[in-house]
Amino acid sequence: MSKPVIAIDMGGTKIKTGLVQDGTVLSSVSIDADSGNGLRQRLPFIEQTIRDLLSRNNLSVTEIGGLGIASPGIVDNVQKRIISIDKKFGDAPDINLEEWSFQTFNLPFSIENDARSALLGEWKYGNAKNYDNAVLMTLGTGIGSAAIMEGQLLRGKHFTAGILGGHSVINYKGSLCNCGNKGCVETEASTWNLGNIAKSYENFNENQLSTSSIDYEQIFKLAEQGNSVALSIRKQSLLAWSACAVNLVHAYDPEILILTGGIMGSSSQIIPYIQEYIESHAWTPWGKVHVEEGKFPSTAALLGIAHLVSY
Amino acid sequence: MSKPVIAIDMGGTKIKTGLVQDGTVLSSVSIDADSGNGLRQRLPFIEQTIRDLLSRNNLSVTEIGGLGIASPGIVDNVQKRIISIDKKFGDAPDINLEEWSFQTFNLPFSIENDARSALLGEWKYGNAKNYDNAVLMTLGTGIGSAAIMEGQLLRGKHFTAGILGGHSVINYKGSLCNCGNKGCVETEASTWNLGNIAKSYENFNENQLSTSSIDYEQIFKLAEQGNSVALSIRKQSLLAWSACAVNLVHAYDPEILILTGGIMGSSSQIIPYIQEYIESHAWTPWGKVHVEEGKFPSTAALLGIAHLVSY
Repeated sequence: MSKPVIAIDMGGTKIKTGLVQDGTVLSSVSIDADSGNGLRQRLPFIEQTIRDLLSRNNLSVTEIGGLGIASPGIVDNVQKRIISIDKKFGDAPDINLEEWSFQTFNLPFSIENDARSALLGEWKYGNAKNYDNAVLMTLGTGIGSAAIMEGQLLRGKHFTAGILGGHSVINYKGSLCNCGNKGCVETEASTWNLGNIAKSYENFNENQLSTSSIDYEQIFKLAEQGNSVALSIRKQSLLAWSACAVNLVHAYDPEILILTGGIMGSSSQIIPYIQEYIESHAWTPWGKVHVEEGKFPSTAALLGIAHLVSY
Repeated sequence: MSKPVIAIDMGGTKIKTGLVQDGTVLSSVSIDADSGNGLRQRLPFIEQTIRDLLSRNNLSVTEIGGLGIASPGIVDNVQKRIISIDKKFGDAPDINLEEWSFQTFNLPFSIENDARSALLGEWKYGNAKNYDNAVLMTLGTGIGSAAIMEGQLLRGKHFTAGILGGHSVINYKGSLCNCGNKGCVETEASTWNLGNIAKSYENFNENQLSTSSIDYEQIFKLAEQGNSVALSIRKQSLLAWSACAVNLVHAYDPEILILTGGIMGSSSQIIPYIQEYIESHAWTPWGKVHVEEGKFPSTAALLGIAHLVSY
C-alpha cells in the first residue's frame, strides 16, 4: 500500500481537494475557484483546505506521499508548470507551484492537464481499464480530451497532444472561440458559450429559456418537455459532440471512448446518440468503438493525478 | 549500400512503379490506374511494367531486395493486406498481394498506406528530416494525412491513426462524404468533389468554369484572373485545408507540417495562406509550426515504401 497523497482538481468553478490512496478518494472538499481573480489569491485557501483535510483524517503531513494538481490548459509535466491557460486562472503560468508545494508542505509535486489526469484515473481504476487505446472527452464549461495509444498517455513534443479535441474545428466557417481559433467544438456546444448559442435562435426572446440563466441540465429537461429552442440546441449540441467524437476516433484509433464532465448528468440522452453516430459515421472497419460514461464522473482527475504522484 | 527495391505507388489515377535504392529513385514508370475496374485486372500490367523497368536498367530480379506497395485506404502493415479502401480498387482487400509478389517475383513484400509512406519518405530523405514530430497532408483527388510522434510513425491499434485527417469533420452540418461520414475535409475541398462544389454556386452556369472539366489548377488560374466562382472556391478551399491543418496540429503536436499532392502545383498560393492561418489560429504557445512543401512532390511515397522494404 502506498502513502496517501493530496490531489487537487483545479476547475474553473470549483477547486476540489482530496486525499487519495491506491485508487480510492479517502476524503475530499470543494471550494469556490474564483478563477477570474487568478490562482495566487486562492493558494492560502487551498493550503487551509489541505490542513483541515489532514486534521479531519488524523494525518500529519509527514504521512503524505506527495501533492498533485490537475489543471486546465497546457501543462508541462516535466518542468512542472502550466504553460498556457485559457482565461481561467490567468496568472497560473507565472506561479512556481512546485516551490509552493515544497515550501508549504515539504512535499514532492506533480502536475498534469485535467483531462489527461481524468483519463489516467479511468484507465488505472475505472472504465478504461484493460484498454491500451482509449480516448476521453469531458463535456462541461469547456470541452477537454485526452488519449492513450498503445498503453502510453499521449503528451507530444510540446505537451499539447490529445488535449485539444475541444478545439478541433468542426465548423470552419463558424465564429471565434475563446482560444483564438474559429469554429471549435467548444464554441458550438459547451456551457461557457451556451447563452450566446441560445440567443442566436430567432424565437429565443419569447422562450421560457430567456427568463433564467442557462445550463445544459435545463436544456435537456426543457427539450424533453418539447421546448422548441431547447430541442434545437440539444440537436445541434449532440451533433457537435458527435463530430468531436468522430474526430477523436479518427485521430487516435481507440477501442473505447469515455465521456465525462458536468453535462453528463444528462448522459442517458447523450451516450446512445454519440454511440450510434460513431457507429454509422466513423471509419472503423475493424469493429465498434465502445462508448461509455466514466466510472468516476467527479473524481477521475483526482485519481489520475494521485496516480502520477504515487508512481 | 542496400539492394535496389521495387516500389509501387497505387494512386487512383496513375500507378507509379519505381526502382529505388538508398533514398534515390533510379528509374520510374507510370501506367493508368483504371482503378474503377479493380486492382486484380491491373496486376499483369504492373508485372510487365516491373519486368520492363528491370530490363531497361540491366537488372535481374535476383538483384532486387524486395517489393513494396503504397496504397490508399486502411492498410495492415503486419498482416500485409489492405483492410478497407474507399471505392478506388474495391477488390484490393480480397487480393493476397504478398503471395502475388512471392509467386511472381520471389520477392519479400511490404505494404503501407500511401500518405504514411510519403511522410516516411520526407522524414528519412526530405523536408521532415531531423524532425521527430511531423505531420503530412496530401491535397489531391482526396486528402490524406500521416503523423510521426516522438520519432515513431503513428499507426494505432487498428492501423487508422494519423491517416484520416482528410476525414476529420470540419463542417458538422455539412453533406455526406464518400466514406459515409458528414462534413469531412474531402467533401469540402478536394478534387473528387470539385465539380459538385462548383455547381453549388448560384452563378456557375454563366461562368467560364461550366464549359470544361474542373480541376484545382484551373481554379487557381481563373481566381488569379478574377473569376468570381473560382475566387469563392479558392477561398473556401484554402479555409477548409487550413482547418484540416489546425486539426492535425492540435491532434499530434508536430514541429513541422509537410504539404504535398497534386494540388500543390499551386503551392505558392497555398503554403503562405496555411502558414499564416496556423500561426494565428492554432494553440501553440511554444512557437510556430513550420509549414513546408514536400521535397519529393511526386516520389515521396515511393521513397517511403522502399525504405520500409529495405529496413
